[in-house]
Amino acid sequence: MKIINVGASVTASNDRDAALLREELRAKGQLMVNLMSAPGSGKTTLLSRLIKDMPEVKIAVMEADIESAVDAERIEALGAQAVQVHTDGMCHMDAGMTRASLEALEDDGAKLIFLENVGNLICPAEYDTGAGLDMMILSVPEGDDKPLKYPLMFEKSNALVITKTDALPYFRFDVELCAARARKLNPAIRVFPVSAKTGDGMAELEDWLRGKLAAWQAGAAKEA
Amino acid sequence: MKIINVGASVTASNDRDAALLREELRAKGQLMVNLMSAPGSGKTTLLSRLIKDMPEVKIAVMEADIESAVDAERIEALGAQAVQVHTDGMCHMDAGMTRASLEALEDDGAKLIFLENVGNLICPAEYDTGAGLDMMILSVPEGDDKPLKYPLMFEKSNALVITKTDALPYFRFDVELCAARARKLNPAIRVFPVSAKTGDGMAELEDWLRGKLAAWQAGAAKEA
Repeated sequence: MKIINVGASVTASNDRDAALLREELRAKGQLMVNLMSAPGSGKTTLLSRLIKDMPEVKIAVMEADIESAVDAERIEALGAQAVQVHTDGMCHMDAGMTRASLEALEDDGAKLIFLENVGNLICPAEYDTGAGLDMMILSVPEGDDKPLKYPLMFEKSNALVITKTDALPYFRFDVELCAARARKLNPAIRVFPVSAKTGDGMAELEDWLRGKLAAWQAGAAKEA
Repeated sequence: MKIINVGASVTASNDRDAALLREELRAKGQLMVNLMSAPGSGKTTLLSRLIKDMPEVKIAVMEADIESAVDAERIEALGAQAVQVHTDGMCHMDAGMTRASLEALEDDGAKLIFLENVGNLICPAEYDTGAGLDMMILSVPEGDDKPLKYPLMFEKSNALVITKTDALPYFRFDVELCAARARKLNPAIRVFPVSAKTGDGMAELEDWLRGKLAAWQAGAAKEA
């Protein structure tokens, strides 16, 4: 497993860099998914489940953290390629940092590449990473009021995955209310309540990801 | 309830501003506690419990968020003064922003003033707010690996409050391991496992806060 250090991107034109990166990935038939959430919402556990449940799709993971390599180690234990990215204290990933991270991945034919962004509901939403899909996670113990407090991330995400639904009996969390609050900010957002522990709801999320990957690759093939 | 907007402090000398603010508060016998955590860790619920459990100490609260006023409304419903601070997208509070927030509080004789910082484990740790105590919260559902990933916040905090311990039966979280990881970064850190829901462990935390307030005020009286 590689551990790389990436600092802030030197270029000010992050949006342009991100668009370019996205097109390069599309031409290669690779869909990058930017996974954002607060710390401890279960990003790595969700990825572990996806890797186990979708053996027909080759998955690679880039784990961005301030420090440690615990998440990348968990992913590698499942047989998927993982690269641990240290952000030099930065609370987000930008397109330049993401490009450097992608270059640290070996080309093993992975078609679905997850960028596990830094655990933070604010800064990551402000930077386009070049991902084809932005997916955010909100876990049940965090509370259903988060769309009210961190609207930008809900506005920017294609999908909201509500994790740890197995804990619903122990916390006050109204899934429908949370989904409605998210849709008020972003009417197109897809909402997937799941438990990576029990498997509840995972099939719907996995089907959606398979469909998105197929559409992404079909779009690239059509243009080629 | 007031809602104020504060942008980034114009001054570069945050450390000096913070030290000055701290001394001003000490001269007035007011202890400001900077409360930091990830989103959804239970900061407002903990504060609600402290307000109910410590009627002999007049408490005021400054709630910093990107948007919404839901937290300040919860505090005011308990009869304590609260001011909602909107940070104009900033993921932290600095000393200048904190001073502006304190000025928005009416002088009602509050001696213990909590600053509920923006929900984020990274940026708030980087800025001295002028608080006399830095207290961080980690909730059980977030996982016991957080000291490995966000070391700076554990290094900077005087106390670590582990919240939602009532959820320990449902999550893998080793309180002793987490405390040991925190102490490795910061041998002086005090660790308080609590459940604001059941009240478990709250008495120890409250006694510690009472002691800190008394010492703070005694120090100011001695110097006067």
